[in-house]
Amino acid sequence: MMHPISFVPDPKLDLVLERVVEVPRQLVWAAWTQPELLKKWFTPAPWQTVECEIDLRPGGIFRTVMRGPQQQEFANSGCYLEVIENERLIWTGALQPGYRPPARKAVPEDFFLMTAVISLEARGKTTQYKALVLHGDEPSRTKHEKMGFHDGWGKALDQLVALAKTL
Amino acid sequence: MMHPISFVPDPKLDLVLERVVEVPRQLVWAAWTQPELLKKWFTPAPWQTVECEIDLRPGGIFRTVMRGPQQQEFANSGCYLEVIENERLIWTGALQPGYRPPARKAVPEDFFLMTAVISLEARGKTTQYKALVLHGDEPSRTKHEKMGFHDGWGKALDQLVALAKTL
Repeated sequence: MMHPISFVPDPKLDLVLERVVEVPRQLVWAAWTQPELLKKWFTPAPWQTVECEIDLRPGGIFRTVMRGPQQQEFANSGCYLEVIENERLIWTGALQPGYRPPARKAVPEDFFLMTAVISLEARGKTTQYKALVLHGDEPSRTKHEKMGFHDGWGKALDQLVALAKTL
Repeated sequence: MMHPISFVPDPKLDLVLERVVEVPRQLVWAAWTQPELLKKWFTPAPWQTVECEIDLRPGGIFRTVMRGPQQQEFANSGCYLEVIENERLIWTGALQPGYRPPARKAVPEDFFLMTAVISLEARGKTTQYKALVLHGDEPSRTKHEKMGFHDGWGKALDQLVALAKTL
């Protein structure tokens, strides 16, 4: 029968954040999949996530709007690819909602596309958390890393854990 | 629980081929999902499909090489998004295998991206066959239509049906 595909990170193209977090994976899953929760942790302060739309199924929309300290806003829209409750969440910015390919003009030169694979494994009451981010080429990976991937995704995860402890 | 997304064709962005075919849907499914069968019908003669690689699961590779009458070859590589046996097959050229975003330089200006949604409904011993092809913008849809979408996909479907009758 059909097995989900597995992922072997490519160090030239991928970025990985992996950590054991002190909250059960059900709460991590909730934080990733409920808009009102996601808005509270998804962007490292002082940035905020001011809008979040989630249709939690393959092809469904995942859209966020981030706002910076100078009120600058960045909107991102993509869709989910795999939704395996409490285990694996995959979404991409390379397809619009409903799996529609992106419009050409919507992809400026300095933009990079990514697909994120969030994997959760229960370790007692803690969770082995892994975020694998796939890029299409080395410049895209480098751009994302220099923008502060490890620091940014790490701080956001800190915020997620702090939030999950209050749930 | 999670329902598969539904599709409402957008006449500005999508192309549709819909037809009742005189073979059961299990054989249509087989023709779409087994490389040795797909190679026999996928490109309208005198074009041939000379290579086909299929990993039939979400994120799995769908790769073909088409060869024209002057021996010119065109390779296409993408991945599956949904695999619901005998019912619905979705694949896209907008993601590489493993859901990886495309490399920028791999997308020349005159190329268009598409996602194909193949839907099969049993009608007794016949099948309601629907191919919905999603594009990211109107120029992409227009380009695909002018390349002969209806004629090409229609002839290929004729070949699929003729093949399925021999199975």
